[in-house]
Amino acid sequence: MSRQRQGSLVSYRPDIKVLDCTMRDGGLVNNFAFTDEFVKDLYLANIKAGVDYMEFGYKASSEIFDPQKFGKWKFCKEKDIRDIVGDNKTDMKLSVMADVGRTDYKKDILNKKDSVIDLIRVATYINTIPAAIEMLEDAKKKGYETTVNIMAVSKVNDEELDAGLELLAQSSADVIYLVDSFGAFYPEQIERLSDKYLNVAAKYNKKIGIHAHNNQQLAFANTIEALSRGVSYLDATVSGMGRGAGNCYMELLLSFLRNPKYNKIAIMNFVEKHILKLKEEGAVWGFDLPYLLTGILNSHPSSAIQFEKEKRTDYAMFYQELIDNTL
Amino acid sequence: MSRQRQGSLVSYRPDIKVLDCTMRDGGLVNNFAFTDEFVKDLYLANIKAGVDYMEFGYKASSEIFDPQKFGKWKFCKEKDIRDIVGDNKTDMKLSVMADVGRTDYKKDILNKKDSVIDLIRVATYINTIPAAIEMLEDAKKKGYETTVNIMAVSKVNDEELDAGLELLAQSSADVIYLVDSFGAFYPEQIERLSDKYLNVAAKYNKKIGIHAHNNQQLAFANTIEALSRGVSYLDATVSGMGRGAGNCYMELLLSFLRNPKYNKIAIMNFVEKHILKLKEEGAVWGFDLPYLLTGILNSHPSSAIQFEKEKRTDYAMFYQELIDNTL
Repeated sequence: MSRQRQGSLVSYRPDIKVLDCTMRDGGLVNNFAFTDEFVKDLYLANIKAGVDYMEFGYKASSEIFDPQKFGKWKFCKEKDIRDIVGDNKTDMKLSVMADVGRTDYKKDILNKKDSVIDLIRVATYINTIPAAIEMLEDAKKKGYETTVNIMAVSKVNDEELDAGLELLAQSSADVIYLVDSFGAFYPEQIERLSDKYLNVAAKYNKKIGIHAHNNQQLAFANTIEALSRGVSYLDATVSGMGRGAGNCYMELLLSFLRNPKYNKIAIMNFVEKHILKLKEEGAVWGFDLPYLLTGILNSHPSSAIQFEKEKRTDYAMFYQELIDNTL
Repeated sequence: MSRQRQGSLVSYRPDIKVLDCTMRDGGLVNNFAFTDEFVKDLYLANIKAGVDYMEFGYKASSEIFDPQKFGKWKFCKEKDIRDIVGDNKTDMKLSVMADVGRTDYKKDILNKKDSVIDLIRVATYINTIPAAIEMLEDAKKKGYETTVNIMAVSKVNDEELDAGLELLAQSSADVIYLVDSFGAFYPEQIERLSDKYLNVAAKYNKKIGIHAHNNQQLAFANTIEALSRGVSYLDATVSGMGRGAGNCYMELLLSFLRNPKYNKIAIMNFVEKHILKLKEEGAVWGFDLPYLLTGILNSHPSSAIQFEKEKRTDYAMFYQELIDNTL
């Protein structure tokens, strides 16, 4: 079923929610080694900017991941979040992400009444949806809002995706996310996929979200394409900070949205104070040719990240290696 | 009249023409000071890449612009082009741009039989269309293909634009370009404008082109949006080199197009050899926050270029200055 565009360029849709995942996706750039000042200032900037949800990082298992080797936002302990936000007496909600198979959610996700976290975001692949559903039920029972992110859907065939969406639409997830993990989709494809997700959502009273990557300089374009179809939860990061080519820029997204609650200036001031420094200190992310190549080949950015780390510039050879390894 | 999408993501449209304007729009970055080796290698790379037209620069008046102060590609003398291309015995055509009011076209544009140039591109504002038409008639009479670029249409109201398009569609122009000079348009707007241009073109058997800027990271997205509506002449530059936020990346565009004649690898090898060096030597272009701000305010990028030159980072103050000066 094809759908109509929602909203217009001069009005706003009150159902839109903006989620900042700078610390979570950006944490993949710097191993979650953010200073407390960075985190506190980002928290304050997001509040001023009218951001609806701020994601602090992952709820990763400390039995799988050595806490000596990662910054604390890989684990998002209750105390660490509270050290920044206190009881978070603000209009902005807080989220963490939990990966299927990489979290001790039964133990590490507290009851909502004991936590300052509002939203649990479960990240799954298509073949781990039953495990994701268990996590979603657990989080819902504990009292949280929930989303589920089906990753790498650019690798999933339509039949499986339809079946997965049906399952998740009947689960405890409040929001199902369309995730372009590899930055492989063009806006035309996002249009069709958004319509598909929205049609399932409409049957079960769920919302749809979008999480885009910038491998083809399309993260923002794909986000507003999805938005214009009716997708309402929008992920973005400050200056697009995120793994590889990074994400949709928060600065672009807030400039596009017409709801007067949003204020891009607070984010720009944060960029001036923190992001420029982070880049000077050597953190690297954002569009570059190797990410374009993994994007168009619909493959994981890890090889491109390695290419950049080694300061290689032989793009043509890299492309041949990618073809050998992915097609 | 609303139109249908043209083509699909797995086939190709033989009417598509790719025009490389690296030296022309990129020349605005470095005052046209390209080395001969750069130009020769770009010419060879474009041929290998299957690019349909390569633009060498402007046909600027040497009475207005001092040839001591600009590189030779501001003027594109016949001899200088021939020093690179000989008689250009290739399938790739050559173009130059001529600005209304800044060219001695009667004298400086030779008869086609004496020139290796194939295409004259006339750049005009909405209020100089009659002068543009004179230039188009002159070029057509001399034997050239012709395009006309209406610049800064994001500042033009619909009534004037409709009238201008009608005039140009009845002129000697073969192709009319939709130009987003300020990087102000969203894909939704490009869709509507493309349809408008294409509807006029259909009546008079003209083609439509697109020239986009990257102020909102939408140059590529807007180019493929226009393409999917039926626009067929597509401007791009290597690594997006162009004034301010730059243009649609040739690397992205060739990756998108499915016609086997196109070969992005030749362009990537050129990037490795020349563009990385150009950037190391200090040439600056590409998306950055000040260009986002001029883009969303629909204003000329010159103030943002100045902001970057002064190495300012006070984005919030710059935004206030822009609002004072433009709204």
